[in-house]
Amino acid sequence: MTADPLNREEEKETGRIEAFSDGVFGIAVTLLILEIKIPQLADVPGKGSLAQALARQWPAYLSYLTSFLTVLIMWVNHHRLFRHIRRSDDSFLVLNGLLLMAVTVVPFPTAVLSLWFRTPETQTAAALYSGVFVAIAVLYNVLWGYAARRGRLLGKDHNRAEVAAITRQYRLGPLLYLIAFGLAFVSSAASVGVCAALAIYFALPGRK
Amino acid sequence: MTADPLNREEEKETGRIEAFSDGVFGIAVTLLILEIKIPQLADVPGKGSLAQALARQWPAYLSYLTSFLTVLIMWVNHHRLFRHIRRSDDSFLVLNGLLLMAVTVVPFPTAVLSLWFRTPETQTAAALYSGVFVAIAVLYNVLWGYAARRGRLLGKDHNRAEVAAITRQYRLGPLLYLIAFGLAFVSSAASVGVCAALAIYFALPGRK
Amino acid sequence: MTADPLNREEEKETGRIEAFSDGVFGIAVTLLILEIKIPQLADVPGKGSLAQALARQWPAYLSYLTSFLTVLIMWVNHHRLFRHIRRSDDSFLVLNGLLLMAVTVVPFPTAVLSLWFRTPETQTAAALYSGVFVAIAVLYNVLWGYAARRGRLLGKDHNRAEVAAITRQYRLGPLLYLIAFGLAFVSSAASVGVCAALAIYFALPGRK
Amino acid sequence: MTADPLNREEEKETGRIEAFSDGVFGIAVTLLILEIKIPQLADVPGKGSLAQALARQWPAYLSYLTSFLTVLIMWVNHHRLFRHIRRSDDSFLVLNGLLLMAVTVVPFPTAVLSLWFRTPETQTAAALYSGVFVAIAVLYNVLWGYAARRGRLLGKDHNRAEVAAITRQYRLGPLLYLIAFGLAFVSSAASVGVCAALAIYFALPGRK
Repeated sequence: MTADPLNREEEKETGRIEAFSDGVFGIAVTLLILEIKIPQLADVPGKGSLAQALARQWPAYLSYLTSFLTVLIMWVNHHRLFRHIRRSDDSFLVLNGLLLMAVTVVPFPTAVLSLWFRTPETQTAAALYSGVFVAIAVLYNVLWGYAARRGRLLGKDHNRAEVAAITRQYRLGPLLYLIAFGLAFVSSAASVGVCAALAIYFALPGRK
Repeated sequence: MTADPLNREEEKETGRIEAFSDGVFGIAVTLLILEIKIPQLADVPGKGSLAQALARQWPAYLSYLTSFLTVLIMWVNHHRLFRHIRRSDDSFLVLNGLLLMAVTVVPFPTAVLSLWFRTPETQTAAALYSGVFVAIAVLYNVLWGYAARRGRLLGKDHNRAEVAAITRQYRLGPLLYLIAFGLAFVSSAASVGVCAALAIYFALPGRK
Repeated sequence: MTADPLNREEEKETGRIEAFSDGVFGIAVTLLILEIKIPQLADVPGKGSLAQALARQWPAYLSYLTSFLTVLIMWVNHHRLFRHIRRSDDSFLVLNGLLLMAVTVVPFPTAVLSLWFRTPETQTAAALYSGVFVAIAVLYNVLWGYAARRGRLLGKDHNRAEVAAITRQYRLGPLLYLIAFGLAFVSSAASVGVCAALAIYFALPGRK
Repeated sequence: MTADPLNREEEKETGRIEAFSDGVFGIAVTLLILEIKIPQLADVPGKGSLAQALARQWPAYLSYLTSFLTVLIMWVNHHRLFRHIRRSDDSFLVLNGLLLMAVTVVPFPTAVLSLWFRTPETQTAAALYSGVFVAIAVLYNVLWGYAARRGRLLGKDHNRAEVAAITRQYRLGPLLYLIAFGLAFVSSAASVGVCAALAIYFALPGRK
């Protein structure tokens, strides 16, 4: 059977893309913690306690949680795509790279949001934050659209119903994050709340 | 045999979760070193030497050692779980993600403890430090409980005695770290000492 | 067939080099985001807004994009090399290590360029930036030259036409980046523009 | 053949340790670049140029090169050990973890050396730097000694001559780094020079 070595070659190929992507997701998610500031001795000048200084940083913890959960969900989704994708080509590598670039950007808006959430500039921070998620959601659609169009990079035996379900579900992503982006100009809390709710919603079992 | 491709698919699935988890453990553990401050030229103003400045940072080295060893033990335990876990589902992915989130948090309380250990706020720092370990220990129980309940995600041929032994051993974790957490309000040295002792105890061979 | 276990051993060997390299590429690319500064509260003193402070950093975003895309292309190329390389030896490990070292250096000139792009020192920054890419392009040629000379580390059944095509294409790299390097002393914008154009050009499909 | 699944299980086991170790080596080596300071606008006050500010940092570049090359050689050696090691146990996991801990420490003495190399405290910095390498070399001997004693974790068909050659070669490591450590108290340049020479020597082909 000449098909065997070929399949193995293909699997090795998508396997290396998956491994590289996993590495980038894993590092992006782990770097988030570096954006949480350590209260310095000088920041707690007699009149306060370390506990209060830590408590005062609550927007940083909420941003951390929301970003971590969101990137985690994205990783789960990436994982799911590669259950169907069996081949790769140069365009796919580049599109996947652009998606990874957007994912590695996440620590930046997370840190901006943490720092500026309770200032008059909070809406700009929330728009930046949800805007990055809009970009990521769009890039997921582009990547999947490229791979799935006429089954381009899917296995010959791919499950059409499941593929169509992913396509439908992914189309919702940019819309939902656009709502969060629009809300940023009204209320940054509402905008970030939608981002957090989306992460929790997609994390809950039952959605598949 | 139709079972073969299925098993391979399953193994690939848990394999990718393991690889992603390994990446996160590896990065979390490596980032710890960034929290140890480099003595700056301005910090050593004539009246001291670099050696003294380095020596003065001993709480940072002890926190580093304790955190590294603790995360290492957690990685070994994660490793052990996946010897029994053969399948995955969306809930499991999310629970594993929450566990990883707690692990990536570790550099933060480690840095807080390093900086605040010899200040009047030391008990708050120790409570934060041991508190994160309580959370991780609880999440291990939740993850393993989900996977092992009625053998949900285990292999059909899983070793029941070994699975029960893990369940029993894991139940101890939150209790032991709760003791460290409680001690923080009495003596931060005792609290951190218990964390260090637990890491060394679990690292010693013979425990399995 | 005694050849089978041998091949498997070899594949495991190059597999581990690929995995290690992927890790380094993935981390280098993800660390880039840490070089983008978070606008601090003190940086926006009444007379400006966060949006303006973010906008003012545009050279940092452009450097980020160019560096990310360039390292991504390098990863794709590394990927491509290992489709042909089947064996390894100590010299190859060291040459690959030197290439990885040059790749991990990228965040440094990227940060220098971001900070100094709109200052009188911009040409120095652009020369450093493009100079690192010259070094990486040269190291790619050295690595590939070592592996491909008389098929030293290639599979016995390697595609000679494809191998020759890679050799020809790689020879262009150092020349093109040398042009960018030379341009730095005339116009830093032109120099960085060539780097960005090269990244986009190599990223576009059709080139192979 | 009942032996087959067993071997596969074992290989998966050491495979995961290798993957985790590769991740830690890869991250430790990539984090080194973060220790090289970006010259700030305020550091170049009229009387100097960016080029001079960059040139003035040469100890940082030399420390970077030496540390990168040394950790790379260590990775190659780790790689080599796992060609012989076929099984794992809890003690081995912990010993490997301690070795990884020592490796992740490397960015710290590297940064201290970079900063303090041209100060009166340079000998302390060089002693710290070479001291960490002494510790790593000792831990390599402990790890390999544990694995190789009476072939404990080696394959049944391990090449005794090659194993003995590794044992002999490794015993030299702590001695050579102890010389570098001792030299630190005479001349920091000589001490770091020995570290650099050792890295280059071990990197040169022909040694195996």
